[in-house]
Amino acid sequence: MYPPEKLTRFIEELLKKQQVPELDACTAARVLIAAELRDIPSHGLLRLPDYLRLLKEGRIKPIPKIRVLHQTPSTALVDGDNGLGMVVSVKAMELAMEKAEKAGSGWVAVQNSNHYGIAGYYAMMALEKDMIGFCMTNANPLVAPTFSSDRLLGTNPIAVAVPADREPPVVADFATSSIARGKLDVLHKKGLPIKEGFVQDKEGNPSTDPSVLTQGGAILPLGGSREHGSHKGYCMASVVDILSAVLSGANFGPFVPPSVAYLPLKPNLPGKGTGHFFGALRIDAFQPASNFKVEMDRWIKTFREASPAKGQPEVMVPGDPERIAEEKNKKNGIGLLEKVKIELEQICKEENIPFPL
Amino acid sequence: MYPPEKLTRFIEELLKKQQVPELDACTAARVLIAAELRDIPSHGLLRLPDYLRLLKEGRIKPIPKIRVLHQTPSTALVDGDNGLGMVVSVKAMELAMEKAEKAGSGWVAVQNSNHYGIAGYYAMMALEKDMIGFCMTNANPLVAPTFSSDRLLGTNPIAVAVPADREPPVVADFATSSIARGKLDVLHKKGLPIKEGFVQDKEGNPSTDPSVLTQGGAILPLGGSREHGSHKGYCMASVVDILSAVLSGANFGPFVPPSVAYLPLKPNLPGKGTGHFFGALRIDAFQPASNFKVEMDRWIKTFREASPAKGQPEVMVPGDPERIAEEKNKKNGIGLLEKVKIELEQICKEENIPFPL
Repeated sequence: MYPPEKLTRFIEELLKKQQVPELDACTAARVLIAAELRDIPSHGLLRLPDYLRLLKEGRIKPIPKIRVLHQTPSTALVDGDNGLGMVVSVKAMELAMEKAEKAGSGWVAVQNSNHYGIAGYYAMMALEKDMIGFCMTNANPLVAPTFSSDRLLGTNPIAVAVPADREPPVVADFATSSIARGKLDVLHKKGLPIKEGFVQDKEGNPSTDPSVLTQGGAILPLGGSREHGSHKGYCMASVVDILSAVLSGANFGPFVPPSVAYLPLKPNLPGKGTGHFFGALRIDAFQPASNFKVEMDRWIKTFREASPAKGQPEVMVPGDPERIAEEKNKKNGIGLLEKVKIELEQICKEENIPFPL
Repeated sequence: MYPPEKLTRFIEELLKKQQVPELDACTAARVLIAAELRDIPSHGLLRLPDYLRLLKEGRIKPIPKIRVLHQTPSTALVDGDNGLGMVVSVKAMELAMEKAEKAGSGWVAVQNSNHYGIAGYYAMMALEKDMIGFCMTNANPLVAPTFSSDRLLGTNPIAVAVPADREPPVVADFATSSIARGKLDVLHKKGLPIKEGFVQDKEGNPSTDPSVLTQGGAILPLGGSREHGSHKGYCMASVVDILSAVLSGANFGPFVPPSVAYLPLKPNLPGKGTGHFFGALRIDAFQPASNFKVEMDRWIKTFREASPAKGQPEVMVPGDPERIAEEKNKKNGIGLLEKVKIELEQICKEENIPFPL
């Protein structure tokens, strides 16, 4: 188990070795550590080696010139100048909140960015300002639309964070696909099949093979089959793709550039980098924030105190599992996957820095 | 088959008999007929008898004083004064679009409203103004959160409409539950079971009984089981409930008033009526609308021309099924369910007006 502060400094050092300025390295490290603390290791240090390699190969700029291309009182289009997704996104979300401060709400579409870690981090930035935060991004195409055998959409997550008074905030942060790629990898390594309703083979037949993605198969949208509502998951993933990429001028659907270094960048892409969409609604642009937060406490209690289904210990509220994990991991430290540790040790040897710091 | 114009006039007449002013009756009729044309009869004339009875009993006001309670350049809180949901909602969406015209975006939370028909109608109002329209509402509690046996959420739909250039618009309009109540009723009447993943019994056990709602059971959120991602459907339904009802001061979750006349209004409700949330993003607040719409054509073609899965004739884009139905029904007329026809004939006899007009 590693103390979060030590891992944070470690990430910062590695990013600085790739010419990322101190403050930006600190921002990126904070987002990655938030993923680890919240038990979403698929978006934590697991991603760092790829970020470092993409920086080294000039596929991500260490010192981007992030610019506002167009704006109105409540909206902006931002060019991330191919910077680290976390650095671009924190700036974009700050801009959304500035606009919400003045105009009641702020909505920022971002082009020319990269993989940004956990969506929830940016949505949660709104909480301390008594705003509701929104965040979405498109991602590498792994998901097939309903009735298709082609991979045209990413796991395209949506995050919404809502402040409360005495209760912890409601934080919904979820992929619009039926399953994450990481979970398929785990089953494959264990030699276990996956139940129906998560993946299909390259012809679009239902499959239980967790390695099907390596054979041209695809992840299904949330819902799984058409009968079970996969068209709704497809709708959501489409909305995320359109707001993140068509509205921003980034690459949509099948054209999203890879976020891993071993896949080459395709030539002649129609848009600019990966796209995100951020939003902030100032609560007292509708009603006094203090009233709202007391009502949110009532909402949260109503749901948390509901009768559990037979065999379930309790009913949770969106954000509860991640918050509980965060409290635990802050105390006990962060455990790294063996595979991640080995990869980081190798990088540290190359960069001549100790691991862990 | 009935011509849409005749049914429209018929609805208007019946609403006017309940003191609804001509223009408002026309608005409400247009929304109900849009549902019929788009093959969503569960939100069409099927609802009219309840609207009429609720008007007659004073549970819906025929002449509401719809007011803005608070506003900023890009937001507003609207009191629907217990008017017909369709009348309140068209006004609220118009306000969202006015704000988007000036501030780039407009977001309107509505309290003290009623059942409003199809969400897609209001989102689609944005299309002709080159805006992206958003609409959501909470609804009668029929859905249990993940791990709970209590019904705390409605089918809480989300609609998003995005304009294109030569292609028809993308219109996502979907419930965040795994199934609509209407589909359960149909199976029950046919004596057929429902597959697993849609409903649970009153203790929260998986069920295949389509009549389980009448015995204290519940509909599952989109995803069905926790394993298949029902926590994501629960997240979405929660976000819809919070934006529609907590942000507006309407009744959230289990407190949403019934939209049918045979269920009494519970006393001491914590909020005001049913809540909705509307939004409009002006596209040229981000980039020239003409560019965006050409890119949307490309998005739409990319998805529509994708390879169909084995056994499927084609890949559709959100909104395609409803648009195809609309074209067909405009030509061939609207077919009413026998049950709806009988009920309307009865009402016409009481009101002494001919059916159909």
